[in-house]
Amino acid sequence: MEKNWIVDEIDKIATIGQDGHGVTRLAFSPDDIAAREYVVNLMRENGLTVRIDEIGNVIGRLEGTDPQAAAVVTGSHLDTVPQAGKFDGVVGVIGGIAALRELQSRGPLTHPVEIIVFAGEESSRFGVATIGSRVMAGLNNIHSLRKLKDQNGISLSQLLNDQGFDINNISKAVRSNSDIKAFIELHIEQGAVLDQDSNKIGVVEAVAAPARCKIIVEGTAAHSGTTPMDDRQDALVSAAMIIVAINEIALERSARGIVGTVGAMKVHPGAINVVPGLVEMWVDIRGVDHQSIVECLQEIKDAVSEITERQNTAVSIEMLSSERPVSMDRDIIKLVSDICREKGIRYRRMNSGAGHDAMNIAKITKAGLIFIPCKNGISHNPDEFASAEDIQIGVEVLVETLYQLAK
Amino acid sequence: MEKNWIVDEIDKIATIGQDGHGVTRLAFSPDDIAAREYVVNLMRENGLTVRIDEIGNVIGRLEGTDPQAAAVVTGSHLDTVPQAGKFDGVVGVIGGIAALRELQSRGPLTHPVEIIVFAGEESSRFGVATIGSRVMAGLNNIHSLRKLKDQNGISLSQLLNDQGFDINNISKAVRSNSDIKAFIELHIEQGAVLDQDSNKIGVVEAVAAPARCKIIVEGTAAHSGTTPMDDRQDALVSAAMIIVAINEIALERSARGIVGTVGAMKVHPGAINVVPGLVEMWVDIRGVDHQSIVECLQEIKDAVSEITERQNTAVSIEMLSSERPVSMDRDIIKLVSDICREKGIRYRRMNSGAGHDAMNIAKITKAGLIFIPCKNGISHNPDEFASAEDIQIGVEVLVETLYQLAK
Repeated sequence: MEKNWIVDEIDKIATIGQDGHGVTRLAFSPDDIAAREYVVNLMRENGLTVRIDEIGNVIGRLEGTDPQAAAVVTGSHLDTVPQAGKFDGVVGVIGGIAALRELQSRGPLTHPVEIIVFAGEESSRFGVATIGSRVMAGLNNIHSLRKLKDQNGISLSQLLNDQGFDINNISKAVRSNSDIKAFIELHIEQGAVLDQDSNKIGVVEAVAAPARCKIIVEGTAAHSGTTPMDDRQDALVSAAMIIVAINEIALERSARGIVGTVGAMKVHPGAINVVPGLVEMWVDIRGVDHQSIVECLQEIKDAVSEITERQNTAVSIEMLSSERPVSMDRDIIKLVSDICREKGIRYRRMNSGAGHDAMNIAKITKAGLIFIPCKNGISHNPDEFASAEDIQIGVEVLVETLYQLAK
Repeated sequence: MEKNWIVDEIDKIATIGQDGHGVTRLAFSPDDIAAREYVVNLMRENGLTVRIDEIGNVIGRLEGTDPQAAAVVTGSHLDTVPQAGKFDGVVGVIGGIAALRELQSRGPLTHPVEIIVFAGEESSRFGVATIGSRVMAGLNNIHSLRKLKDQNGISLSQLLNDQGFDINNISKAVRSNSDIKAFIELHIEQGAVLDQDSNKIGVVEAVAAPARCKIIVEGTAAHSGTTPMDDRQDALVSAAMIIVAINEIALERSARGIVGTVGAMKVHPGAINVVPGLVEMWVDIRGVDHQSIVECLQEIKDAVSEITERQNTAVSIEMLSSERPVSMDRDIIKLVSDICREKGIRYRRMNSGAGHDAMNIAKITKAGLIFIPCKNGISHNPDEFASAEDIQIGVEVLVETLYQLAK
């Protein structure tokens, strides 16, 4: 296996969007597009045919001997959160290309094999995640996609246009199990389970689903020097109470696997001498048990109502997404586990707290998700780290899994 | 008096920086400069000689008969908070020009009379207020001014350069009582005292001083789906607890005239799927009693330490400014009160919760501050309103005060 090639390519991609505070390649941004173009060339140099579908997914393909056979597919993403590390997503893209290089050297396979770079996996820009794989699985209605705008008011529709695509054509990107035999994603764990128990591979059984909402608190903007404390409708004070409440509610339910986060916030007008009149907050709730997510959301809504009523501020809650946890395919879980056992690689079965493109592709075909360890579980952070050895082991397992499915 | 002229000019200035959500003319912004240029022309059309000093204060002047006499000065500001109304500052500028028009029609005065537009009165952009009048009163050291940057990293020094000024020359803008006999500012109250008790004029006795600080909370940015609740250092949860604490501390001390506000906040990296790693907050504490401000700040520091220690996050507090309440000149308070009484205008003596340029000029000469009512006390908000009648009464009192001092 080509350990150095993989590490070199991961390092090269990390220079795109590097600003000294980590890597920032927001979905559909110029840096994201630049990384995509780099990888398109890399795929071509390595003998793959490449096409880009109508939502911007990059599909590199190696033909099989049977022209009618459905493809065996791997893939992940290149877009990042702000100030990210260099492994999230990229390991599955570069590892996937490395896997296809290795498969080519083994001689012709019956099934075609594909490596896909999914567009817009991170939710940082539009508040919704895994846009590219949702579109490919036919899970988006065009209406909700047309509404998507980033915090600066730039629409996804406009960004696709700028790239020569038309959002009205995205149904052409939809695929099915007649076309894809199976899908396997390789990804860093983004948690500390593997790092703590010294397993080298995590075979994912279920992916937790995020429920996401935007909370808008409305008060009254007023002069900070002349408005008495008891005559204020301070939107930020209400928002702060809501943040504390969400944290408490999630803490109480953490034994049932719930996590709750207010990750982004905007204060208006946002001046040192003005009592805030309006606050927007973006909330992310996750768990592997659908019922406890639903209960948690209800508790948050109750707390928000109680706080804003008491503080004499107004509130609205907009659900951005709410999905059910997704199981990975049993046959693929068994296949990956068997491969690890045969190769003598320490592995464990586990759940994924983070969402991944694999959970969408699971709706149309057999899907699997393979984790490799990441140091101290740190991710979405410039300190994110996966060792060259661990990446190599992951690619080795991916190669064998793709080979067994495509041979 | 020229009520329609005043209202027309206030309306014209309100079109500069109007964006449908109120008026935004941040200090030294293109819209602020455009308003300044408009007023320079207006002064010249009305027979004043105009100069702009090294910090950008505009000084319109009417000569007196005694070439050695010190000037009697009025003035206020044109810059605004984000999404402001149209009266804050502008009433004192247009009202001041109207007063000088009226004085011209009464024939020559012994003393020169000046109307000044002070630069950078609002703290919204640089976190410090009344930059122009502080420089004129010699209260700034050049070192602290050179450090000033806005939230986008643009320095005051650069902005002055762009206008053809050099921050190293600002000492040339300093004036003294040999040059200024007295200063009177006309301003809307920005509180509800006059509106509620039906007085038409507030004669200010003391101006509350703001103490301002920036609080930076540091946690650890982490993936919102994979980081367990009990393993987080969420900077925003700590920040929210601090906001609630500051509000409680200020509420407890509100009977002693204390107000406390967190008006601006930035969350980093600020993505829905990342636990916040760093939060910046800007805090404004005010009162007319210096000792209670000091005690309040100490209580906030204690609360901040306790919260961040308990939440396993780190904190730093940077004091941006901390000033003592300022008394207005007794002779001027008496003069303005006498004028109101003679004219049969209902007035009251009061304190100012907001800071004003008058508090700086009070350090070098006799200074006074005249308030007119503003509806429901609403200010720093597009709904800010002062009636044409009330503005006219304010200008009438200003004219008489300037006349008595300059005759």
